[in-house]
Amino acid sequence: MIPEDHPAAQSDTPHPDAPASGAQATAPALPDTLGTPLLDRISGPADLRGLSDAELVALADELRREVVADVARTGGHLASSLGVVELTVALHAVFNTPADKLVWDVGHQCYPHKILTGRRAAMAGLRQKDGISGFTKRAESPYDPFGAAHSSTSISAALGFAQGRELGAPTGDAIAVIGDGSITAGMAYEAMNHAGDLGTRLFVILNDNDMSIAPPVGAMSQYLTRLGETLPLAALKQVADGVESALPGPWREGARRARRLVTGLQGGATLFEELGFTYIGPVDGHDLPELLACLRAARARADGPVLIHVQTVKGKGYAPAEAAPDTYHGVGTFDPATGVAKSKPANAPSYTSVFGQALTAAAGRDPSIIGITAAMPSGTGLDIMARQFPRRVFDVGIAEQHGVTFAAALAAAGLRPFCAIYSTFLQRGYDQVVHDVALQGLPVRFAIDRAGLVGQDGATHAGSFDIAFLANLPNMVVMAAADEAELVHMVETAVAHDDGPIAFRYPRGAGRGVPIPERGEVLEIGRGRILREGTDVAILSYGAHLGECLAAAEALAGQGISATVADARFARPLDTDLIDRLVAHHGGLVTVEQGASGGFGAHVLHHLAASGRLDGGLRVRTMMLPDRFIDQASPAEMYAEAGLTAGDIAATARVVSGRG
Amino acid sequence: MIPEDHPAAQSDTPHPDAPASGAQATAPALPDTLGTPLLDRISGPADLRGLSDAELVALADELRREVVADVARTGGHLASSLGVVELTVALHAVFNTPADKLVWDVGHQCYPHKILTGRRAAMAGLRQKDGISGFTKRAESPYDPFGAAHSSTSISAALGFAQGRELGAPTGDAIAVIGDGSITAGMAYEAMNHAGDLGTRLFVILNDNDMSIAPPVGAMSQYLTRLGETLPLAALKQVADGVESALPGPWREGARRARRLVTGLQGGATLFEELGFTYIGPVDGHDLPELLACLRAARARADGPVLIHVQTVKGKGYAPAEAAPDTYHGVGTFDPATGVAKSKPANAPSYTSVFGQALTAAAGRDPSIIGITAAMPSGTGLDIMARQFPRRVFDVGIAEQHGVTFAAALAAAGLRPFCAIYSTFLQRGYDQVVHDVALQGLPVRFAIDRAGLVGQDGATHAGSFDIAFLANLPNMVVMAAADEAELVHMVETAVAHDDGPIAFRYPRGAGRGVPIPERGEVLEIGRGRILREGTDVAILSYGAHLGECLAAAEALAGQGISATVADARFARPLDTDLIDRLVAHHGGLVTVEQGASGGFGAHVLHHLAASGRLDGGLRVRTMMLPDRFIDQASPAEMYAEAGLTAGDIAATARVVSGRG
Repeated sequence: MIPEDHPAAQSDTPHPDAPASGAQATAPALPDTLGTPLLDRISGPADLRGLSDAELVALADELRREVVADVARTGGHLASSLGVVELTVALHAVFNTPADKLVWDVGHQCYPHKILTGRRAAMAGLRQKDGISGFTKRAESPYDPFGAAHSSTSISAALGFAQGRELGAPTGDAIAVIGDGSITAGMAYEAMNHAGDLGTRLFVILNDNDMSIAPPVGAMSQYLTRLGETLPLAALKQVADGVESALPGPWREGARRARRLVTGLQGGATLFEELGFTYIGPVDGHDLPELLACLRAARARADGPVLIHVQTVKGKGYAPAEAAPDTYHGVGTFDPATGVAKSKPANAPSYTSVFGQALTAAAGRDPSIIGITAAMPSGTGLDIMARQFPRRVFDVGIAEQHGVTFAAALAAAGLRPFCAIYSTFLQRGYDQVVHDVALQGLPVRFAIDRAGLVGQDGATHAGSFDIAFLANLPNMVVMAAADEAELVHMVETAVAHDDGPIAFRYPRGAGRGVPIPERGEVLEIGRGRILREGTDVAILSYGAHLGECLAAAEALAGQGISATVADARFARPLDTDLIDRLVAHHGGLVTVEQGASGGFGAHVLHHLAASGRLDGGLRVRTMMLPDRFIDQASPAEMYAEAGLTAGDIAATARVVSGRG
Repeated sequence: MIPEDHPAAQSDTPHPDAPASGAQATAPALPDTLGTPLLDRISGPADLRGLSDAELVALADELRREVVADVARTGGHLASSLGVVELTVALHAVFNTPADKLVWDVGHQCYPHKILTGRRAAMAGLRQKDGISGFTKRAESPYDPFGAAHSSTSISAALGFAQGRELGAPTGDAIAVIGDGSITAGMAYEAMNHAGDLGTRLFVILNDNDMSIAPPVGAMSQYLTRLGETLPLAALKQVADGVESALPGPWREGARRARRLVTGLQGGATLFEELGFTYIGPVDGHDLPELLACLRAARARADGPVLIHVQTVKGKGYAPAEAAPDTYHGVGTFDPATGVAKSKPANAPSYTSVFGQALTAAAGRDPSIIGITAAMPSGTGLDIMARQFPRRVFDVGIAEQHGVTFAAALAAAGLRPFCAIYSTFLQRGYDQVVHDVALQGLPVRFAIDRAGLVGQDGATHAGSFDIAFLANLPNMVVMAAADEAELVHMVETAVAHDDGPIAFRYPRGAGRGVPIPERGEVLEIGRGRILREGTDVAILSYGAHLGECLAAAEALAGQGISATVADARFARPLDTDLIDRLVAHHGGLVTVEQGASGGFGAHVLHHLAASGRLDGGLRVRTMMLPDRFIDQASPAEMYAEAGLTAGDIAATARVVSGRG
């Protein structure tokens, strides 16, 4: 259900069992006895340019096996990388990288690219602490001219490079590689619209693997399918070899106009041609000679923006992945011979599934509940609701801007929309949250998954800023779940809250293993709770770091310091009564949150300052994410790097307790 | 240069003199002796439905004169409202508003709509304190089902209503009216893509007034022009009366497919048809009988999404506005007989023009400086640079997402891009600021105009949140200009800052009248300045409220309280030395900013808490925008409503001085 190129299409739980397909039951999925003699000779893309086309074909086979072997060891994005093996080889063989700027959209398909660009050995540390990123990253390599991870930025970036060249920057050609999912986002359309207007020489490779995934969303994807079905592959040759393209620029435009007059308004033009691009395709993305011919022709002749439509198969060449590309989109470690996962199942259900179950149960009781996802039905758990109530779950595609406003109108129509978007992707709909939801006071419910640090996907996927960017919006209620039971209560609270917008955040991964209620309670808005009573110092937790706060209190008890631990539940409205009681009865206060500065702690400080509670002296500390982006590692490692372990909290609490 | 339907297309300075056209020199622009006998009988849209088509034509004439007379008294968006007089009449006559949901994109063209929907008398208070909004607004009328002001939200909203109806909400038809500028934004495309996929009955009126404004941006607008030139008006009849449309749904789709097979891939389909819409048009938007026939036919027969392409003339029917529609886009009060403005010129140049001049001067010295605007060349002052360096200014269209990432890539290519976007519209590019700029540490310069409260455009255009959403981003430098001379320094500082992204904010309207340096100085990053030395209390200003802070200090002096006034200049990095000195040597500290909570004051508090300076007691107050949206009024009235006058600051400072 996850469109392949969605930025967010990360499977958080390694696939629990072998793929349903029997492919690997009959034969080893991959012969691991073959060597990589050609790949061993490649130290960088320049070496590709000395190989014959036949050698490049052989190299692609080696590269494919290498990708499978690498990902089997580390986990990662397998299927999308396998789909672009030939394309990667062809692009580096034809274009003059890194002088030519190759921009991979999302970047999760970049493993073959990393292997060919000097990071073959580093693949052992893929997505791990102190290792290389799972996405393209400027700091890693000159072959990554523009980092990615969120979708649909590549055409804008490539156009920037192309235009920079026109303005004298020492830059060669610019090539964006974008998937059929990513190109449906408004941002990609904006970039094509601008590129078509400028007419700058630019290459956009549409990596269309529609066939390998459940139908992607939107009229655009239907259009691409139609295009692929109707246009013969020979259309490529017509464009590449045809009369028109051999004419100099101005004459060619004249010939096109003439054709248009003869054949009607668009004269068989594609949507891309209507936006000012030369369209070439569709091309078989696994036929390397055809790909090479196409890219060479385009490179030789393009004098404006060109869209090359390449059809690929997700998971290509690795039977288990071809058979279940969604399962193999993001995987944990596995046995490359069979495709069977090595990972252990988690000890508790994921927050995502708890949310999905709770919302589905609520939807069974309340027909006005609607689910909205931006191309992430399984990532958000809305697939659970969709199975039971398919008409009431909307996958709007990679379109957070539209999704938020669509939800706002559903709320205006009297329904109860739940907009389930990861923290990092909700940034894409921020203006709509402010302007269409908060300002109008419309009761949209925001279910914000992947809040806080998320692990292997690194800084680009961290949910760091949502508390800060939501908690200063008038009319908004902002909650954070301390554990999976709290999440169930917050779903119920959000259902009941018809007075305005309400948001609740929760982290990636497994819950804490607490009992999950059948049905949640409706929480009192703006009311926190005390979990442990102490006398010396108060620790006020907001969200899923409550466990660390309780552990810190336990550690402090061992040092003779008595700590109260409270769960604020709400960053907005603040439980000022609770805060006032905590500061009145303790020597100091520590706030703890899984978010950046300007969020929960800041609002506590605003309250304390405004009410004069700082005037007489108050030992208060706000613990939050530090002032830097944190690279990929396990979440625990990342929080250690952030200075947010139980030990860090205990140390800070001890200082402000006055007994440290 | 401002596309008519851009949300932001607000002319801040009333046009300085009469339009260049001689139209009004030969005859009065408007006969003011005619009465409004038909309009006087209209108390709501239901009354329109009892009129004949001929009476509706006469009503439209009266309505047009009423709009001119109203706007002459109050100022406002004239040209766009005049362009939709007939369309407004037709929509309310044909559709069953308010059960049918009519959503005006941006909403600045809604004056005829307001007059017909019970707000005729209230037009005297248009855009004024305690009056009605210049945009559609849910709180104002049941005929405004979804408020607007930022562009390109209408299709998403209308689709939400339409889908709500399908799910049982008591909602009739849903109609979005969107301009040819607004429809180029990615969000509109996302919504059409989703609508085409759902196939829900929905009406999108494309209000295309391309002809009346300088060429709008993008390949899409070229496409619309081509469409308008090629398709005869009779195409409407073919669609409305043709065989296909009379067939039941499934058969019709079959007929379409057959046509496609016969005529080629798209068979003359428009881009909108390719996205799943039935296309009707182009229709003459000032031929009311044709409009009525078209809307009646569409209403009777639509069983999916329909796009009705209506061609209108901005300023239609009022000679001065037709002759200079950009000048009359947003106007101050004027003489309706001549079109001559009544407003006085400002006493100081606007921040916008100071920015534009300073950037142009810098661009003359440094060929790497590039300007980027999202459809607001004159609103941002980039038109000044564009006149001198046309190749180095890019108007990306209504496409803030693309614009920010495009700028990031220009920076990656080694250029020095200045991305000039209003505070409220930068919200549209927030994710790109985080993910493509800050995370990669790319030196994009953000020139943030319209920071703080903006006056007559009200809450939707307030620049309230930029400090908070920028100042917690690692790698970012965030400045605010205290006056127009400071703005010039900040332009120069931004030019020199190649280490990472840098932003500077400044307010709408005229500067403070201080001398403007020939060339700015490069400010030391993270260093504020002291303007007035005192002993009792410190007032730390961030940005353009410095004048109020100095006035407050003056008032306090009269009360025997000695106040220091400092200008922080930077919200990030904070001048912690300055802050520490202020708190060490004064009885209390007041921070003042033109922004919401979580911003500058919050970061000052974070610093004070982390450094233990609150432990021993510190009277500190953070003055900022209050926790509510503030309706339109003059900026001074809005800041009074916000509790941010010089008197408010003095009162707060007095309390924390310990001498109050």
